[in-house]
Amino acid sequence: MKLWGGRFKQKATKLVEEFTSSINFDNRLAKYDCIGTIAHIKMLAKAKIISGSESKKLVISLLKILSKIETGKFRFDKNSEDIHTNIQKELFKYAGKIAEVVHTARSRNDQVSLDLRMYLRDETKTIISSITELQTIFVDLAEKNIDIIMPGYTHLQHAQPILLSHHLMAYYFMLARDKNRFNCCLKRINIMPLGSCALAGTSFNIDRKYVAKLLGFPKISENSIDAVSDRDFVIEFIAASSIFMMHLSRLSEELILWASKEFNFIELPDTWTTGSSIMPQKKNPDVAELSRAKSGKVYGNLFAILTVMKGLPLSYNRDMQEDKENVFSTIDTVKSVLNIYLGMLPLVKFNKDIMRNAVYGDFSTATEVADYLVKKDMTFRLAHSLVGKIVLYCIKENKNLESLTIKEWNKFSKLFKADISQIVKPENSIYSKISEGSTGVIAVKKSISSAKSHLRSE
Amino acid sequence: MKLWGGRFKQKATKLVEEFTSSINFDNRLAKYDCIGTIAHIKMLAKAKIISGSESKKLVISLLKILSKIETGKFRFDKNSEDIHTNIQKELFKYAGKIAEVVHTARSRNDQVSLDLRMYLRDETKTIISSITELQTIFVDLAEKNIDIIMPGYTHLQHAQPILLSHHLMAYYFMLARDKNRFNCCLKRINIMPLGSCALAGTSFNIDRKYVAKLLGFPKISENSIDAVSDRDFVIEFIAASSIFMMHLSRLSEELILWASKEFNFIELPDTWTTGSSIMPQKKNPDVAELSRAKSGKVYGNLFAILTVMKGLPLSYNRDMQEDKENVFSTIDTVKSVLNIYLGMLPLVKFNKDIMRNAVYGDFSTATEVADYLVKKDMTFRLAHSLVGKIVLYCIKENKNLESLTIKEWNKFSKLFKADISQIVKPENSIYSKISEGSTGVIAVKKSISSAKSHLRSE
Amino acid sequence: MKLWGGRFKQKATKLVEEFTSSINFDNRLAKYDCIGTIAHIKMLAKAKIISGSESKKLVISLLKILSKIETGKFRFDKNSEDIHTNIQKELFKYAGKIAEVVHTARSRNDQVSLDLRMYLRDETKTIISSITELQTIFVDLAEKNIDIIMPGYTHLQHAQPILLSHHLMAYYFMLARDKNRFNCCLKRINIMPLGSCALAGTSFNIDRKYVAKLLGFPKISENSIDAVSDRDFVIEFIAASSIFMMHLSRLSEELILWASKEFNFIELPDTWTTGSSIMPQKKNPDVAELSRAKSGKVYGNLFAILTVMKGLPLSYNRDMQEDKENVFSTIDTVKSVLNIYLGMLPLVKFNKDIMRNAVYGDFSTATEVADYLVKKDMTFRLAHSLVGKIVLYCIKENKNLESLTIKEWNKFSKLFKADISQIVKPENSIYSKISEGSTGVIAVKKSISSAKSHLRSE
Amino acid sequence: MKLWGGRFKQKATKLVEEFTSSINFDNRLAKYDCIGTIAHIKMLAKAKIISGSESKKLVISLLKILSKIETGKFRFDKNSEDIHTNIQKELFKYAGKIAEVVHTARSRNDQVSLDLRMYLRDETKTIISSITELQTIFVDLAEKNIDIIMPGYTHLQHAQPILLSHHLMAYYFMLARDKNRFNCCLKRINIMPLGSCALAGTSFNIDRKYVAKLLGFPKISENSIDAVSDRDFVIEFIAASSIFMMHLSRLSEELILWASKEFNFIELPDTWTTGSSIMPQKKNPDVAELSRAKSGKVYGNLFAILTVMKGLPLSYNRDMQEDKENVFSTIDTVKSVLNIYLGMLPLVKFNKDIMRNAVYGDFSTATEVADYLVKKDMTFRLAHSLVGKIVLYCIKENKNLESLTIKEWNKFSKLFKADISQIVKPENSIYSKISEGSTGVIAVKKSISSAKSHLRSE
Repeated sequence: MKLWGGRFKQKATKLVEEFTSSINFDNRLAKYDCIGTIAHIKMLAKAKIISGSESKKLVISLLKILSKIETGKFRFDKNSEDIHTNIQKELFKYAGKIAEVVHTARSRNDQVSLDLRMYLRDETKTIISSITELQTIFVDLAEKNIDIIMPGYTHLQHAQPILLSHHLMAYYFMLARDKNRFNCCLKRINIMPLGSCALAGTSFNIDRKYVAKLLGFPKISENSIDAVSDRDFVIEFIAASSIFMMHLSRLSEELILWASKEFNFIELPDTWTTGSSIMPQKKNPDVAELSRAKSGKVYGNLFAILTVMKGLPLSYNRDMQEDKENVFSTIDTVKSVLNIYLGMLPLVKFNKDIMRNAVYGDFSTATEVADYLVKKDMTFRLAHSLVGKIVLYCIKENKNLESLTIKEWNKFSKLFKADISQIVKPENSIYSKISEGSTGVIAVKKSISSAKSHLRSE
Repeated sequence: MKLWGGRFKQKATKLVEEFTSSINFDNRLAKYDCIGTIAHIKMLAKAKIISGSESKKLVISLLKILSKIETGKFRFDKNSEDIHTNIQKELFKYAGKIAEVVHTARSRNDQVSLDLRMYLRDETKTIISSITELQTIFVDLAEKNIDIIMPGYTHLQHAQPILLSHHLMAYYFMLARDKNRFNCCLKRINIMPLGSCALAGTSFNIDRKYVAKLLGFPKISENSIDAVSDRDFVIEFIAASSIFMMHLSRLSEELILWASKEFNFIELPDTWTTGSSIMPQKKNPDVAELSRAKSGKVYGNLFAILTVMKGLPLSYNRDMQEDKENVFSTIDTVKSVLNIYLGMLPLVKFNKDIMRNAVYGDFSTATEVADYLVKKDMTFRLAHSLVGKIVLYCIKENKNLESLTIKEWNKFSKLFKADISQIVKPENSIYSKISEGSTGVIAVKKSISSAKSHLRSE
Repeated sequence: MKLWGGRFKQKATKLVEEFTSSINFDNRLAKYDCIGTIAHIKMLAKAKIISGSESKKLVISLLKILSKIETGKFRFDKNSEDIHTNIQKELFKYAGKIAEVVHTARSRNDQVSLDLRMYLRDETKTIISSITELQTIFVDLAEKNIDIIMPGYTHLQHAQPILLSHHLMAYYFMLARDKNRFNCCLKRINIMPLGSCALAGTSFNIDRKYVAKLLGFPKISENSIDAVSDRDFVIEFIAASSIFMMHLSRLSEELILWASKEFNFIELPDTWTTGSSIMPQKKNPDVAELSRAKSGKVYGNLFAILTVMKGLPLSYNRDMQEDKENVFSTIDTVKSVLNIYLGMLPLVKFNKDIMRNAVYGDFSTATEVADYLVKKDMTFRLAHSLVGKIVLYCIKENKNLESLTIKEWNKFSKLFKADISQIVKPENSIYSKISEGSTGVIAVKKSISSAKSHLRSE
Repeated sequence: MKLWGGRFKQKATKLVEEFTSSINFDNRLAKYDCIGTIAHIKMLAKAKIISGSESKKLVISLLKILSKIETGKFRFDKNSEDIHTNIQKELFKYAGKIAEVVHTARSRNDQVSLDLRMYLRDETKTIISSITELQTIFVDLAEKNIDIIMPGYTHLQHAQPILLSHHLMAYYFMLARDKNRFNCCLKRINIMPLGSCALAGTSFNIDRKYVAKLLGFPKISENSIDAVSDRDFVIEFIAASSIFMMHLSRLSEELILWASKEFNFIELPDTWTTGSSIMPQKKNPDVAELSRAKSGKVYGNLFAILTVMKGLPLSYNRDMQEDKENVFSTIDTVKSVLNIYLGMLPLVKFNKDIMRNAVYGDFSTATEVADYLVKKDMTFRLAHSLVGKIVLYCIKENKNLESLTIKEWNKFSKLFKADISQIVKPENSIYSKISEGSTGVIAVKKSISSAKSHLRSE
């Protein structure tokens, strides 16, 4: 079935039908197509374009179709090119030829934008709520493991001792930004395009704001050409998803590193790892690897849709049909990776002693030594250079800062007193941090408690 | 000059210095590096970490340096690896060894984030304000050309008659979304990271909120590891810029099409076109072509930085230095394309008669005919099919809807009355549109006037 | 069924199984997995690792499985994580526990590389052969339409008159390069990795070259770590496909432009266009639009796999499983777009008179006029400038080069003689072109005939 | 100076000149522009289009200009829009108005393609030769360190013991493919486009093959429209560079991991690392980090140029000017990263004992144990499962395969004999590997020696 044809002497070839058909993927929009059409019909009745009884009959029919869709009983017909045609055809079966009024003051150009916006609005909210769950897990882990000391890294080199909890809370804040971004997207998704029709609007006296109200949209689109030309909301959503996936690729990388024999900072649960068909000893962090890799899929989707839209003249062009597979693939990927981490993260076992021992003898309190000298009025540059030399001495003598005697310290500077042996202890380094947002225990605890109350209030 | 070295037995090779040096591009941050350092010093004084007189001396020195920078007199030293080292070295010249206190409670990791944020904040505001100017031009053009009728396109085929003004206003709304997006970015740019130090915060009793206040930041970063690991604000800015450039690639495509001999809808000003070295008759829309192409540059920058950040473990890694060239190139590109269009657009001459004539005989009021029949109670599908056949008839007979006699109309349906000859006039098609956001004259005028008052209030 | 498990205390969760499973997409490799395993078994027998009768039994079983696959009767089991496990399990059913010898001297790391290489080798050859068909169509069209004159464009402005055939032959040469590139890829696809095992090779005395010979590979991989780490051949194939899709996006753009009312250079066949559900007159070039857009999909796949591989340590990482969906999607897209153009292009109708008329009065022979003056010893710059002024004069007086009188020509230069009126005729401009590869009729005919003999010899 | 203008009533604005100017970057092509013009002039003389003395004068002038360029004395004039105009203007200074003949039978469209192809041909050869140097370093390192045993990884988990040399040789083969790819590019770069002129060829009786011969091109372009529309060679070069950069991102990742305190497999030379301005103990692998990141830059360039070319109608469009910055940036990046690794790699110190010890107790010979059982006729699946259980036992008992007593082995299977204690030694695992391309010492030595003779013969 096609919604057009009179102007053609011959029908499209099978190949064209297959090539241009979108029903294989846009069937996801079925539910929203029904809901949108119901609102459209109610508006047509309110505007006296159709009668109350016509409206009633159509709405009841659509509710039946909706119920079929939601219970998985709806059969999508590959011969009807898209979801709109599928629903339209079904409506005809239920309601007869009155079904055709759905075409009044509407075209597929505004209809598909409406469907996609409703769908994306729901999915974005679902994703936001899953991110909140993931944040909760990070906060819980941070709270539970508040006593674990580990090396803080820059350049993958030991930099300064930190609390594991502080590290975990970094992800809490990264995810908070992701939610902010998705919420920003929502503002521009949440705009009602129906009534823009093909591109020019309509001569029927419709009430677009009523449709918006029925469907929970705070705003209507303000220019009909723009409304059918616009896929910004799709791109923006995939861009926000790309940053989110980048965040999770960093988390995945860290879990892979930490689960390596060399780091051995964590034990991944048996239930969330896989083995090798050939090497019996293997326990692989496949889940983290695939999550890391899936950033590629979402980046690819972003580039695909940006390419599609580049240089298109206004208004609607068929190119824009390519938006859907990209947005669907992005949503599936984001949600699956979220679900994976929601399941796996709480089961990760942190090897407390190994993490703590990793800080031993790693010179990561060298900055404390420099600060010690600065507080005794040495210039920072001199202090920095002197401590560098102490580190070199230790490496050469196979010693570490924790084990230097006061005599050795004094060989480098008389400013060192006995208390230096306390200064170089990682615990003390951490305790000494007092700035807001720092790894100091008080700061981290405050951060956890504030996050908890924030999550509660969402 | 290096800010480190004590721990090394040998100096870095020349090649390493060149390869890792950023002074060739990060010298753009010079101004912000001074301003940020001034705030840092004032805070150190407030927190009694340095004395009032030390602070005064340093601030005065930095103001002198700032003045040199702003008057173009500052000489960047290629041998000092980055802008921070350059400024630091200069400060030493002016203020002597007290200059070293700037290292207290600060590292280059938080410093570069601060500088970049201040820079990007200013540039984003500049871009937003240029977009507003561009919107103003679109509104002015729409107002001035309110009487121009043209074909509205879908699939680059004539779809329905529209007002040129309606088409121009579509760009107004696209640009409005761009501004919304840049404003959303600003929220996440506008966060003060200083005090995060290398990654762990500091043991000095600093006042981060005071620094934020001095520098006009409404918020401080809440986790020191995240603060030095985060480049989301850069990516987000480039993503928003990519969508903006995509919009301008569409505008450029349209101008190129419209300036072709075949369309001939517009005349580009001599002053904004270029010629050919070999073909004397050529007048090329190079400016629009290059603007269209420059979407590639910004897309490329987006994928560059997304690639850089993929899979990086926390916290700071040197990879992140690659953020700057991408963000600088993006800003330059966005601003230059904006400036180009700000100059050229007002001078574009619309060929009113050609645009109007393009609608003649193009069947673009066929939808009106179908609606006409629907209003006389034919079902839409029948009407659609019937009008399709009328179009086929016209093509075969080399006629058009405007020239059909009532007799010919009646061969297809008796529902047609004499008034059908009015219905098929493009002007009437446009006048008939009454929905909000439609191409109807009233709707477009309302849109223009609301845009004007909106622009005034910004 | 899993091929591992002894080392685990608990089984992977359902979610992990789903997340890491590839059977939904790698079932495409079924045929190649069988063929590869047959070769592996034959080699094991030749190397006396298994007996001749064992080999026979296994090969017969695999041939049965292969036949089931090729007739579509094979049932893929979602509970077996990948295609290798599926085939392996089926082989067990047919051949009993001897089936397990397939694991000898092989792991999934080298097996999946082998399967993918065989699959991609076949598909690349299919694509090359379809491109040859498409080239044949271009040559046929060029030959059939050798008498059509049209404007040649630069900057979408009329530049010089050309033969349509010359324009069509440009695509022939673009496609020739595409084939060269795919053939280059084939060299690096066509390398036999089996025997690399997990990453280190094997202690069994296998004969890798024999496997290569059985499977038609001219070379074996030379380093087992590289063999299981390498996806260059996938990336390279998608890069070549991206350039091919870019070529077709240019063709599509031209068809869309040419089918517009403004150009009207071509009529697309009814059977290869689609209509509008709302506008009865529409006949849209959807097929060309979607083909143009699908460059986005392939570009996206390229970026996805480049992202996946970035920064991965050697050797195999699970990230690499993401290669398959990208390569499958690319192949499907390339083949579908090829099929579309193979069907549509021969049916495109060129509007000969409209194309010819488009050249009339477009000043596109201005370069001939300049060359005319140069041949009479005016410097090129003077000639260029003078002809520019003549064009300006024509525009002002609403004339064109074809209609200028000799008197008017002489107002600009006495060098013009009566023959100038022949010089400015588009036909003569084309005939005058004599350089190799030019649009001159002789050059184009030579190009067509050489292409034909080249295609015949392939 | 402009090469056009007569047709214009007004000059381009300053802004347009700046926006469209390419002299800031295309000045790199200066040398090739001269060389190409010399060949063009010699051909014009040979074809009797200019006289021998004219040719001589022009060639001598161009040689002088070339010498100025090569000694850095040429002053590029920002007011002349591109390199062609710059050279042309200079030639005018030297040779007077005869200089204008260079425009005969040439336009900037074919000229810029020629220049870019000559430039890229040279740079590609330089890159290929640097890659050969890098391969030599890998082979040398592999030869020198043939006795170092290390863990082979899959999924960043210990998989099987390997020789470091085998791992290093994997990079040798990756680089060999890179060279193959660049050589494939060269075939399509190495085509002579001059004589295609603006897009249609020329009416002058030129000898394109003579130009090709003078400039060392084996082939001329065969279609003038294609010749000026084509940037495949640029894209293909950047795609090959992207794969190369991906390879180096993997190498960089490994060096960063191996230089971490946790791995400690290598010591980077002081001269090739950098320090921290705040943490005195830091020695950072910045060079490897930046090299890893720079894959982003090249990927970005690839997507930029793919975007630019998407959907462009034939033939030349100004969009294509954007090719140059992408290709220049790619070349600079590839060469700088190559130089960095050429300098640093030979100085990397491998910590032999630590690498060897990393294999101790890591169960990475578990596959040998399974193979041991298989050789004693246990099925592979049973063997795999049994060894999995042995590994679990070891983990629980805090033992490893090397330290199990024969009694313990026999608890799992009576098939184990005393020789099992030899089987589980990493050295023996490596020695046992005998397949071609394996990590077995003989195979690796053979690989090194074959690589050496191959490199010598290049």
